[in-house]
Amino acid sequence: MERVEQHMCFGGRQEVWKHASRSTGTEMRFGVYLPPAALRGEKRPVLYWLSGLTCTEQNFITKAGAQQFAAVHELIVVAPDTSPRGAGVANDEAYDLGQGAGFYVNATESPWAPHYRMQDYVAVELPALVEQHFPASAVRGISGHSMGGHGALVTALRNPGRYRSVSAFSPIVAPSQVPWGRKALGAYLGADSSRWAEWDAVQLIANASERLTILVDQGESDEFLQEQLRPELLRQACNAAGHPLELRMQRGYDHSYYFIASFIGEHIAHHARELAR
Amino acid sequence: MERVEQHMCFGGRQEVWKHASRSTGTEMRFGVYLPPAALRGEKRPVLYWLSGLTCTEQNFITKAGAQQFAAVHELIVVAPDTSPRGAGVANDEAYDLGQGAGFYVNATESPWAPHYRMQDYVAVELPALVEQHFPASAVRGISGHSMGGHGALVTALRNPGRYRSVSAFSPIVAPSQVPWGRKALGAYLGADSSRWAEWDAVQLIANASERLTILVDQGESDEFLQEQLRPELLRQACNAAGHPLELRMQRGYDHSYYFIASFIGEHIAHHARELAR
Repeated sequence: MERVEQHMCFGGRQEVWKHASRSTGTEMRFGVYLPPAALRGEKRPVLYWLSGLTCTEQNFITKAGAQQFAAVHELIVVAPDTSPRGAGVANDEAYDLGQGAGFYVNATESPWAPHYRMQDYVAVELPALVEQHFPASAVRGISGHSMGGHGALVTALRNPGRYRSVSAFSPIVAPSQVPWGRKALGAYLGADSSRWAEWDAVQLIANASERLTILVDQGESDEFLQEQLRPELLRQACNAAGHPLELRMQRGYDHSYYFIASFIGEHIAHHARELAR
Repeated sequence: MERVEQHMCFGGRQEVWKHASRSTGTEMRFGVYLPPAALRGEKRPVLYWLSGLTCTEQNFITKAGAQQFAAVHELIVVAPDTSPRGAGVANDEAYDLGQGAGFYVNATESPWAPHYRMQDYVAVELPALVEQHFPASAVRGISGHSMGGHGALVTALRNPGRYRSVSAFSPIVAPSQVPWGRKALGAYLGADSSRWAEWDAVQLIANASERLTILVDQGESDEFLQEQLRPELLRQACNAAGHPLELRMQRGYDHSYYFIASFIGEHIAHHARELAR
């Protein structure tokens, strides 16, 4: 592990680290915000943030304004890159496949399978690394935006007991049913769509063995709302399964980080409450 | 004027506009945050923000997290680009001269004089435009970072009566005495350093005809502190002139937007107090 950035921020410290990942077989980078208590060595809970298409570890840490709320609630916030990267890693010219578009799955198909193991990375390797190197407890929450909202929901649902809180902004809730998801899951997992179900929040909800309340904010003026995001499918699935969901449609807001910044304080407060139980 | 971006943010709206500037003879862009009251048509005071070397109008609006505080205090916040730009505009390979490095002066020397008239732009043309097109009162504050901190101090000091509040982050307080300033003022204004005095905050303080309290935050771990910024020169000049200064040295903070984000709320509260008088 090598620290590549550090900046004092709201009395804590925003850092960026790089390390060789066993999961992806590449160098991976992540941002970590250490709140004031963590700088004093106190073990604190960790909120994991998964970013959307095209993002690196930088987008959330520079644009979301999360640090001030993480400082107030004394939460560590970890934001990894969205895919493996590098000259030896399979890629595609499109923005929604390949590098920057890992979809937080473990790929089974060529040419993606060797490096695109983002689920192993975010759910297993990264938490172990964070809990070893920082004053981080094993009390975890997870959130994300768009593709990363999908990643947060799926990662929490696939791993009962591993997270105590989950939320999402503008998530892709049913990748099996929308163009972004069908393209990515088809490439990474193959054309047999029955194999996509374990990576689809709407399908996972039906058999969820724990009942974490899902907090979702969705802008009503989001340019991807109707075709790619479809939060009504999550509402239907949660209603059918009796799964607790707080879905908030936010009038006038779009898909940008201006939307995330406007509500990240409420999400962090939600995670802080759940993580303190 | 043409709007090129708009995003709901903290109940207000972050917009970006472009227009043909008489001052620079180029197209100029600026960000404007309209707080909730302005969206309802109420005239509100305006805080002008001048950014630092290499920045466009984007840096402050995406990274500073100012909108939440502007919303609370119902201030309009306007953030222009830092220089004229375009194929027909003089430039330099260095990051600290030419496009992205206008230093908020009116250039007199070739090849800069035709377009590098950023002082006219930020002090005259832009406020007139803002007060014509938005629900903006003629009650103005000004702030900025680094080169833009220099710009904020100099613009307020050169134009008594035009601003009711002034602050800066990590400002270049004495451009005549530091490498960044000597290079830029030498190029834009000529080698005769006596002509630089009217663009140098430390020199302008001695003859300031109004006594706006200057709020300055400066990180103690700022990599440019000793060579380029030298806040002690501002303190000496203010002490000598009896000019009110609140200079706050902030332990551990660097020159980045993580520093600005950490204290922008206090700066906006300072401006809101002064602008409400």
